[in-house]
Amino acid sequence: MNEIFDKALDEILILTTGGTIDKVYFDAKSSYEVGSSIVGSLLEQAEVRHPCKIVEVLQKDSLELNDQNRALIRDTILDHAHRQIVITHGTDTMTQTASAIADCADRTIVLTGSLAPARFAMTDAMFNIGMALATVQSKESGVYIVMNGTVFDANRVHKDKNKNAFIADPPGPARKGPEH
Amino acid sequence: MNEIFDKALDEILILTTGGTIDKVYFDAKSSYEVGSSIVGSLLEQAEVRHPCKIVEVLQKDSLELNDQNRALIRDTILDHAHRQIVITHGTDTMTQTASAIADCADRTIVLTGSLAPARFAMTDAMFNIGMALATVQSKESGVYIVMNGTVFDANRVHKDKNKNAFIADPPGPARKGPEH
Amino acid sequence: MNEIFDKALDEILILTTGGTIDKVYFDAKSSYEVGSSIVGSLLEQAEVRHPCKIVEVLQKDSLELNDQNRALIRDTILDHAHRQIVITHGTDTMTQTASAIADCADRTIVLTGSLAPARFAMTDAMFNIGMALATVQSKESGVYIVMNGTVFDANRVHKDKNKNAFIADPPGPARKGPEH
Amino acid sequence: MNEIFDKALDEILILTTGGTIDKVYFDAKSSYEVGSSIVGSLLEQAEVRHPCKIVEVLQKDSLELNDQNRALIRDTILDHAHRQIVITHGTDTMTQTASAIADCADRTIVLTGSLAPARFAMTDAMFNIGMALATVQSKESGVYIVMNGTVFDANRVHKDKNKNAFIADPPGPARKGPEH
Repeated sequence: MNEIFDKALDEILILTTGGTIDKVYFDAKSSYEVGSSIVGSLLEQAEVRHPCKIVEVLQKDSLELNDQNRALIRDTILDHAHRQIVITHGTDTMTQTASAIADCADRTIVLTGSLAPARFAMTDAMFNIGMALATVQSKESGVYIVMNGTVFDANRVHKDKNKNAFIADPPGPARKGPEH
Repeated sequence: MNEIFDKALDEILILTTGGTIDKVYFDAKSSYEVGSSIVGSLLEQAEVRHPCKIVEVLQKDSLELNDQNRALIRDTILDHAHRQIVITHGTDTMTQTASAIADCADRTIVLTGSLAPARFAMTDAMFNIGMALATVQSKESGVYIVMNGTVFDANRVHKDKNKNAFIADPPGPARKGPEH
Repeated sequence: MNEIFDKALDEILILTTGGTIDKVYFDAKSSYEVGSSIVGSLLEQAEVRHPCKIVEVLQKDSLELNDQNRALIRDTILDHAHRQIVITHGTDTMTQTASAIADCADRTIVLTGSLAPARFAMTDAMFNIGMALATVQSKESGVYIVMNGTVFDANRVHKDKNKNAFIADPPGPARKGPEH
Repeated sequence: MNEIFDKALDEILILTTGGTIDKVYFDAKSSYEVGSSIVGSLLEQAEVRHPCKIVEVLQKDSLELNDQNRALIRDTILDHAHRQIVITHGTDTMTQTASAIADCADRTIVLTGSLAPARFAMTDAMFNIGMALATVQSKESGVYIVMNGTVFDANRVHKDKNKNAFIADPPGPARKGPEH
């Protein structure tokens, strides 16, 4: 076993893909846009000393993610030896991306994001990143979504647009992942 | 199985005991003091929808906690049917309290706190509460401490005063809990 | 002199018209919009005890303000007996509105806004509202703009779009107000 | 007239002396202390472009300021050619220091501070610094205190300990400055 692989066993890999959590506001254009990821500065504020490696994969609103983008996220996971992976992601299509990476589920993968931008004074971003780092250290392999204070199995949750919240699916057979 | 017990299986019990996380500043006295717990408003800001019950047990700096106080924390755990318990606590004697409740470890118990008061603009409080809620949902029974971005076994961690951080103990036999 | 007039001599009248300062983020729509004014809660956070009366006149991005809207702002000023008036306003057309109310300049009128929404963790909103309340109490009658830490004569300043900042006009005759 | 003097006519001189506004919290000691001044970073956050020069004179709780300290503040004022001077100061003895520098009142001098530390999420610090910068640009020469949203003549205001607020003195002859 080589040194790179050893390090990857300790380290949490954090992939950032954009979404509300990274939205900034440009007064010049009177518009918001997905900016460079804020995750690094959140970890610093939280005085995190756990080894983490942050890779910025994409900077997109999750409604604009296409199949090619999801393939890139999946490839980035497969390119790394890490067993503990956190993905920050827009909330609208988070479950779709979870399905697209379902065959990486021999790792522990946790998707999260936020309902309010991390740069707001009042935001769920810090809390959700904390949940993600704890879940990825605590859960056996699989794909999970942490939002609204709950650790969900990624294929048993949906975003309720009206409630603007993630709600567990009713009991019964789980939503299918994508065909391969 | 009665209704109260059923509810307790779903619900996370959050016991607040004071510590830096709840410190407020009184200009009138030019001093910081432990105030009423801020955990409820943190959960609200984080848009948490998971069922939680908050019980304020104590409002003390953890250096001032005595054996009687720790017995009260333990009794409060035993008085509840909940299997998932988060305890907010000052950082200086967090491991001591963990030892004092070691015989409750058939539940999942997670202790956390913060290095900077939650009322600060820059604080680890929100992140740590997020970690605690995720850990208590994800880990099998046992007593855990989450601080500085890591999920620790409570009897294999110590606070390093000089680094002002929680550091894992070196490998070897775990620190003992209290004699009974 | 009647009671209403007496009160108006003490009280600062704050007219809110929208702009970046009041922008909120709607995750449901993935967009920022001008929300109800945040000025009241800023004054509360600042522990302001000075008598103030807040009137929400408009909730618009300043690029969307038309002549009718500016007439409404002017009429609202004339409808009140107050001699000290603060107007919160989008930054893009702040100087235009200042010109449109130039004939109210027997009062002290101060326009301000912010480059980053007040709901952001990092924002100039709180500082600018503080400047506006101080300027309106300190200056003789006239129309002023306070932005970027400077108290400007309203007809001797412009917004530099590239620098995203308010810059004093070069010395020389002042910009004209509107014809009447 | 030399270059240094010319610059001083444009520039606002900001003297920091400590007080609640600069209080930081040390978890290691479970205590707060006056830290290095936060004024520079507040000006940056407020996107201030007005020329300012910050001089850290003291780092003390205002209850601990003695005659020698007040002489140092006065000497620092006299050592500078600036006509516009802001002083950040603890609230408890702000009026005392105002009296001690009463003979510098051919300049415009504005004292301010905050009731909650600037490092808190909820604080009056940013607002008060905004007020001070506006007042010092707007008022004729004299000594002023800005707190709780009001611009006060420094010798016609007192801190009401019970209300934890600055209240204007009742009408009548002003409080005397110190004998010289």
